[in-house]
Amino acid sequence: MIRSVKVLVSLGALLITPSLQAEPFENAAEAVEYRQNAFSMIRANFGVLAGMARNEIPFNADEAKTRAQAVYHLSYIPWQGFVGMGENAYEGTEALPGIWQNKADFNNKAEALRSAAKELVEATESGSMNTIRPKFMAVARSCQQCHEQYRD
Amino acid sequence: MIRSVKVLVSLGALLITPSLQAEPFENAAEAVEYRQNAFSMIRANFGVLAGMARNEIPFNADEAKTRAQAVYHLSYIPWQGFVGMGENAYEGTEALPGIWQNKADFNNKAEALRSAAKELVEATESGSMNTIRPKFMAVARSCQQCHEQYRD
Repeated sequence: MIRSVKVLVSLGALLITPSLQAEPFENAAEAVEYRQNAFSMIRANFGVLAGMARNEIPFNADEAKTRAQAVYHLSYIPWQGFVGMGENAYEGTEALPGIWQNKADFNNKAEALRSAAKELVEATESGSMNTIRPKFMAVARSCQQCHEQYRD
Repeated sequence: MIRSVKVLVSLGALLITPSLQAEPFENAAEAVEYRQNAFSMIRANFGVLAGMARNEIPFNADEAKTRAQAVYHLSYIPWQGFVGMGENAYEGTEALPGIWQNKADFNNKAEALRSAAKELVEATESGSMNTIRPKFMAVARSCQQCHEQYRD
């Protein structure tokens, strides 16, 4: 009974939560937290692949695939924290204003990450680190090229 | 020059970060934070769809599609916070021990969410809320069925 009430309350809260616009954040701080969380989750997963690529972590094909898939799925996520409430929200963060001055280029770099991450997932199907490593490096370069220009 | 040094340091840090196992978290608290962040990100995106489904937010086909895609991609993410360092990590959280006592069922429910979220994405291609709404409800039920059993 308590459980059912909780479920109803929780479902009700979910349905009431959003403000009256297509915006998942109430303020800029929430948008910034969202995108920072997304990047830290990408980093957590990519870090395991980095360890395997450097032979510091024993290679495990299933684990590599799981991590690559997580990076791929997460590569769709941070960008919503840069628009709407997150638009021009850079004070106190490492984001640089150039993100919003060169939005098309920034978006292209996000797309480059998604594309590189997709190829990384495909490479993990091989089960071979020799096939995975160059695709891992391509994702790392994609991160780096964007950070170099748009992260302080 | 400063920028180049920063990039090198940052790339070096990324490559050094992982501990010597295929585990992206240093302790249970990090695993818990990871999965909680993932769920809150799902909720942020799904909340916008909920508002549209209830006609509280004006329907916008592109926005609905973006939000559904985010929910779909994020539906792959929280589960890694329940294994490894996150195994049996429930104290001080809303997770119930049953998650680890019924792992196969829990994993099936996670798969049900991914599957429902995929159908939701496909429904958003229609651009019609009448097509989207039942798929939205199916995702909501999938959340609820898992919460009912495995969330305190």
